[in-house]
Amino acid sequence: MTTERYFKGDVFHTPTDGQLEFLEDALIQVDSSGIITKVTKKGDNDYETDCQLAEEVIALAKGQCFLPGFVDLHVHAPQWPQAGVALDEPLNVWLDACTFPLEAKYADLTFAQTVYEDLVMQLLARGTTTVLYFATIHLEASLLLAKICVEKGQRGLVGKVVMDDPNANPDFYRDQSTDSALKETEQFIQSVQQLAETAHQGVYPVVTPRFVPSCTDAGLAGLGALAQRYDVHVQTHCSEGQWEHDFVQARFGKTDTEVLKDFGLLKEKAVMAHSNFISSTDGAHFIEAGAAVAHCPISNAYFANSVIPIRRLKAQGVTIGLGTDISGGFSPSLYDNIKQAVMSSRMLEDGVDAALDQMDRGVPDSRISVIDSFSLATKGGGEALKLPIGVLKEGYAFDVQVIDSCHKDNPIPDFGVFTSPEARLQKILYLATMQNIRQVWVQGKKVHEK
Amino acid sequence: MTTERYFKGDVFHTPTDGQLEFLEDALIQVDSSGIITKVTKKGDNDYETDCQLAEEVIALAKGQCFLPGFVDLHVHAPQWPQAGVALDEPLNVWLDACTFPLEAKYADLTFAQTVYEDLVMQLLARGTTTVLYFATIHLEASLLLAKICVEKGQRGLVGKVVMDDPNANPDFYRDQSTDSALKETEQFIQSVQQLAETAHQGVYPVVTPRFVPSCTDAGLAGLGALAQRYDVHVQTHCSEGQWEHDFVQARFGKTDTEVLKDFGLLKEKAVMAHSNFISSTDGAHFIEAGAAVAHCPISNAYFANSVIPIRRLKAQGVTIGLGTDISGGFSPSLYDNIKQAVMSSRMLEDGVDAALDQMDRGVPDSRISVIDSFSLATKGGGEALKLPIGVLKEGYAFDVQVIDSCHKDNPIPDFGVFTSPEARLQKILYLATMQNIRQVWVQGKKVHEK
Ligand SMILES: [Zn+2]
Ligand SMILES: [Zn+2]
Repeated sequence: MTTERYFKGDVFHTPTDGQLEFLEDALIQVDSSGIITKVTKKGDNDYETDCQLAEEVIALAKGQCFLPGFVDLHVHAPQWPQAGVALDEPLNVWLDACTFPLEAKYADLTFAQTVYEDLVMQLLARGTTTVLYFATIHLEASLLLAKICVEKGQRGLVGKVVMDDPNANPDFYRDQSTDSALKETEQFIQSVQQLAETAHQGVYPVVTPRFVPSCTDAGLAGLGALAQRYDVHVQTHCSEGQWEHDFVQARFGKTDTEVLKDFGLLKEKAVMAHSNFISSTDGAHFIEAGAAVAHCPISNAYFANSVIPIRRLKAQGVTIGLGTDISGGFSPSLYDNIKQAVMSSRMLEDGVDAALDQMDRGVPDSRISVIDSFSLATKGGGEALKLPIGVLKEGYAFDVQVIDSCHKDNPIPDFGVFTSPEARLQKILYLATMQNIRQVWVQGKKVHEK
Repeated sequence: MTTERYFKGDVFHTPTDGQLEFLEDALIQVDSSGIITKVTKKGDNDYETDCQLAEEVIALAKGQCFLPGFVDLHVHAPQWPQAGVALDEPLNVWLDACTFPLEAKYADLTFAQTVYEDLVMQLLARGTTTVLYFATIHLEASLLLAKICVEKGQRGLVGKVVMDDPNANPDFYRDQSTDSALKETEQFIQSVQQLAETAHQGVYPVVTPRFVPSCTDAGLAGLGALAQRYDVHVQTHCSEGQWEHDFVQARFGKTDTEVLKDFGLLKEKAVMAHSNFISSTDGAHFIEAGAAVAHCPISNAYFANSVIPIRRLKAQGVTIGLGTDISGGFSPSLYDNIKQAVMSSRMLEDGVDAALDQMDRGVPDSRISVIDSFSLATKGGGEALKLPIGVLKEGYAFDVQVIDSCHKDNPIPDFGVFTSPEARLQKILYLATMQNIRQVWVQGKKVHEK
């Protein structure tokens, strides 16, 4: 009796950055723990034999295919009710009048449960199988988010947010003290690690200073020590916009990256949201530390005052994935962010101000392709989190989206033209909606079906 | 016996540019020709009386509302099969290897019918009630597109494309001669004007030189004369990218705008796609002529090498609407373009290159709000076409989308926070999908229902 399961269908993924690998009618073998044990495609030596031996194969229909589940490296879960709201306001109004009062509401666990359950399901329905979440400052509600991820079958990495500087945060929404912030973070780590024993797909605690400006030196140092002691993930914002970048420079006489490094927060399994203003020297610190960037292109158009030079940083060797940054970014969909990452990179290359000479207005060689961007949302996310996800090959989790390009609710234009695998994937990335995502699987379990 | 019909529900629209008017539970009276005769809202003097007199009212459910139908000012209908494809290629490869061979296929009317029927329905399903279309160089297929608009109930403005310069266009895809291009354009105008007699919602012929570089001087002059003689709409591309802008300058020693003006093509009812590089002097020519700009923000990220300064041009008094530019723009949705117009304007304001000083990298006061952008897609489009559409008030066509924010296929986050009319509309504009568009009406006729 076999414990293997078998899935069969066309696969699009990028085992090498920015290079599409198309596996025609692939046979994917998955073990009982949800890990891929073998992938063969039409034309491979073993393919015919493997297909004959396979039992109870789940085979896709014509027009369907497998994509890796998306990895969202930056979501503020409590901000989901604010998605799309007040984005025309300046950042300080957006934060003080909208975001902080909203986040404060998560002291109420009933409210938290309603929002978090909806959000986790909405993200799964958009093909996002792994998410790195900021919760709020509340220990209980943050733990609840982790539990909901476990229940709904999403691979969640969750952080209780720390904002411990009384001078930098509103009284109605901050940690009571540095000490309590650190104690609660440690409690949170322990509770989530205990919860993880029940989570087939994994659930992970994340050390989460909101960003340097909202924390005391002691808070940052304490969080760095916790991150090292428990060897857990870290997330924060790094050099997001001009204000933050300059503020940290003024407070410490160093870049945000250097400050985070000195506090022990720039490390393996650390994901820094945005990082738009990092220099090549900062980039080298990221590489040396094994830390990664969460690029959030939609959010950046509102709050980052710039476009991050993804291509330059990738060429340097920095690990980069994508994030929605709900609700600095309005969209819960990484499809939307894949597209925006391409567009923003082209706007960086070409520049924006037509009144300037063409040679003076952009940054040459900045554009990325939509396949590059798809890599960021899949393989890049897995690498950032140091998890075997984002590629459909042996040893990786079976995290997939089943896409139906022909579904009646959003048939993707075909008409018999542009039918190469590359064109097929481009059309999916640019035109698919939730309606085309028929199933979502995380670590071998079906967690969403339309 | 009344010939009026009555619709009742919340209305969001912008009778003044960029200013949201919210009409709570409005009663909209529509005459038998599909024109709005009266609108009253809760609290108005006549409201209670009007509501009592109204018969067979079509009333929206809780969570639903009316938005004006969107006006798409720039669609290449034949390029629908190419949406999302090959956008990583340089423009010349994209045109020569993909677009022109594809457009050439519309000599085949069966192919044309399949694509055009699908496209018109897809645009209606996304809330687009009026479209300004480029067809191809083929007289028959272009006429077919106009007929399909009439049949499906969309308000279509359609142009047979002229590309008459043998030195500028591939042999397999160009007009046979300047003379035939002009003759066929005239025939096309007459045929569509005849067709219009059967079209409840209107259908309009459009004089359509592809762009200055693809036409001879004689061709452009002849088209200008036809546009004047028949007093029809005109559409073309104007100063889209650096190459086009410079090419026209080199050929004529004048800007694209000035050239079009001199050929009689910059006139009332003329819509110029893109126009990214127009100067203030060019803008003054637009205003004097009564011509309008079709802003296509998604397409511009790929092919326009810049962001058009919408806010500056609006302040100057230029009429501007939005276009998808299928398939230079991948998305058939004006919702996506509303969002991108906002993001691009912010990137113009803030600049893109983080290595430059903040003062040096952007263009101050360039950002537009999402309500501004909604204005462009509705009121702006109507003004550009000189048609009474895009606003829901007396004398305007009853062109609406019925939005259901609560629909189970895409419930827009509510959770009892951010419930002001402005926040409600922002959430719809940022988060609605096709699934939320439950009905679409054009000039009082229901043309789409989910
Ligand atoms: Zn963030
Ligand atoms: Zn165009």
